[in-house]
Amino acid sequence: MKYYLGIDLGGTKIKAGVVNQNYEIIAEDSADTLSKRGESAVIDDMAKLAYSVLDKAGVTLEQVKWVGVGAPGTANKETGEIEFSNNLDWHHVKLVDELGKRLKGKKIFIENDANAAAYGEYIAGSAKDANISVMVTLGTGVGGGIIIDNQIYTGSNFAGAELGHTVIEYQGEPCTCGRKGCLESYASVTALIRMTKEAMLKDKSSKMWEICGGDIDQVNGKTSFDGMRAGDKTAIDLVDTYVGYVACGIANIINIFQPDILSIGGGISNERDTLLSPLRDSLTREVYSRTSEKNTEIVVASLRNKAGVIGAALLGKAN
Amino acid sequence: MKYYLGIDLGGTKIKAGVVNQNYEIIAEDSADTLSKRGESAVIDDMAKLAYSVLDKAGVTLEQVKWVGVGAPGTANKETGEIEFSNNLDWHHVKLVDELGKRLKGKKIFIENDANAAAYGEYIAGSAKDANISVMVTLGTGVGGGIIIDNQIYTGSNFAGAELGHTVIEYQGEPCTCGRKGCLESYASVTALIRMTKEAMLKDKSSKMWEICGGDIDQVNGKTSFDGMRAGDKTAIDLVDTYVGYVACGIANIINIFQPDILSIGGGISNERDTLLSPLRDSLTREVYSRTSEKNTEIVVASLRNKAGVIGAALLGKAN
Repeated sequence: MKYYLGIDLGGTKIKAGVVNQNYEIIAEDSADTLSKRGESAVIDDMAKLAYSVLDKAGVTLEQVKWVGVGAPGTANKETGEIEFSNNLDWHHVKLVDELGKRLKGKKIFIENDANAAAYGEYIAGSAKDANISVMVTLGTGVGGGIIIDNQIYTGSNFAGAELGHTVIEYQGEPCTCGRKGCLESYASVTALIRMTKEAMLKDKSSKMWEICGGDIDQVNGKTSFDGMRAGDKTAIDLVDTYVGYVACGIANIINIFQPDILSIGGGISNERDTLLSPLRDSLTREVYSRTSEKNTEIVVASLRNKAGVIGAALLGKAN
Repeated sequence: MKYYLGIDLGGTKIKAGVVNQNYEIIAEDSADTLSKRGESAVIDDMAKLAYSVLDKAGVTLEQVKWVGVGAPGTANKETGEIEFSNNLDWHHVKLVDELGKRLKGKKIFIENDANAAAYGEYIAGSAKDANISVMVTLGTGVGGGIIIDNQIYTGSNFAGAELGHTVIEYQGEPCTCGRKGCLESYASVTALIRMTKEAMLKDKSSKMWEICGGDIDQVNGKTSFDGMRAGDKTAIDLVDTYVGYVACGIANIINIFQPDILSIGGGISNERDTLLSPLRDSLTREVYSRTSEKNTEIVVASLRNKAGVIGAALLGKAN
């Protein structure tokens, strides 16, 4: 039996898991990232979690083929450094060296977290065996990962595939990246929450108020969809607007990549067909290749919040 | 000496050329496409041009390694068909078979024209030896071609790399592709001419009137740039606006692909540094990787209007 160890280093949580040759997580654990402690303490905890999940799985470090890490930021596979991570406030952290020291020199692969998740979906999830697949994550931000012929596409400097940071509304809403009008500013959960609050403040009689217990601070990515299901007109219009933005971004990606499969992940993808049906309708009208015999299949990512750990664990297969 | 034969099939002209092993065109010829005659007559003329340039070059068909064709539309390399071409009004034209019959069964490669031009720039022009290069053509439309590790990226259905048909202004100007707000509707020569006319109609004292001899129908892609050089305020603002749109589209492409080199071709690229300087300034602020040590080099495409024929002639190297 072969085993792989994956670590999904996030801005708030570090998750680790032992993955078996059927690409299932057989043991997992997590800890708070607390990146303000500095990189050394964070890397200590990554190693601790690694030993903890090995222990839980009853597997030794020697039995693990390699360790893979997905991290938010630019992961330079040549130098083994996280060149820059906005979320962790890391600059040129020698992650492969430092984690390797704590894991007896075990072979370590690093990758951007969105890319690792996309790779997980390609190897073991919704995009299995696709020659070309793209994963778009509609979460706190909008993440992107592109897999072409079993390779993770990262561009010439490991900073590529930032699909969320493409402008769809020229000089529109400000984005955390410094640009205005990025897809992330319209299609992320954060953006949907912003738009939901705006719509509620304009319509004090919307059922969405009831749904969030009269407290606008309780609005989340589900509020507008729940309002729509309750037949609230404001919510119906809002979901329609939101899906329009998502469709615009997805059509852009299809016109560029024409992947075999495009997987949608992140919190909003829990809506499944409520999101996918209007999205597919819209794409049928929008994409440049709409008359082609073969078009991209749009699916919901299947590994859910395990994609990060599974994808990280399997990184050695891409290298 | 090795020779290659390239044919650039356009909506208005068919161009053919014999290319030598130094990637220079040693003989060329062209004819009007007149696609309304039907595909058979067009393919007859493609073959005639092929024999004509061979004759001019003093090279026999046998001395040519292969024939390559760049065509506007979806070129299916597996079936040898042009699946669909809006410009030519072609549907499932068996180009490889039909042209092959007329060229004694010679090996024929087909490719989308923008992709072929990008490949020409990669093999013999501005993107020589780049692992990853993208070419954006600011012409009548906005074309795109993506070369990754010596392969032309065309997606799962040969319809990819439509960089011009990505929305940058949600629900903006209508595009020929059926969407609204595409990069092509803001960054093409056609778009610049539209915006120039609009600006002139608003400012009857603009120097741009003089530049086009008082006849608004004489406006072309150079009018606003000439007005800017003449110090006309309306023209200065217009060029500024136009470069802003171009920069938005280019920053999107860089955030996705992070190519080593991004080449800009098409009529507007004749402005060279007048376009590139403000574009580079803007990108320095816009791209996600602006703090990375390595960033995309932005250059003007160097093969100019020969890229199509040279790229087509060299297609066999990508296959």
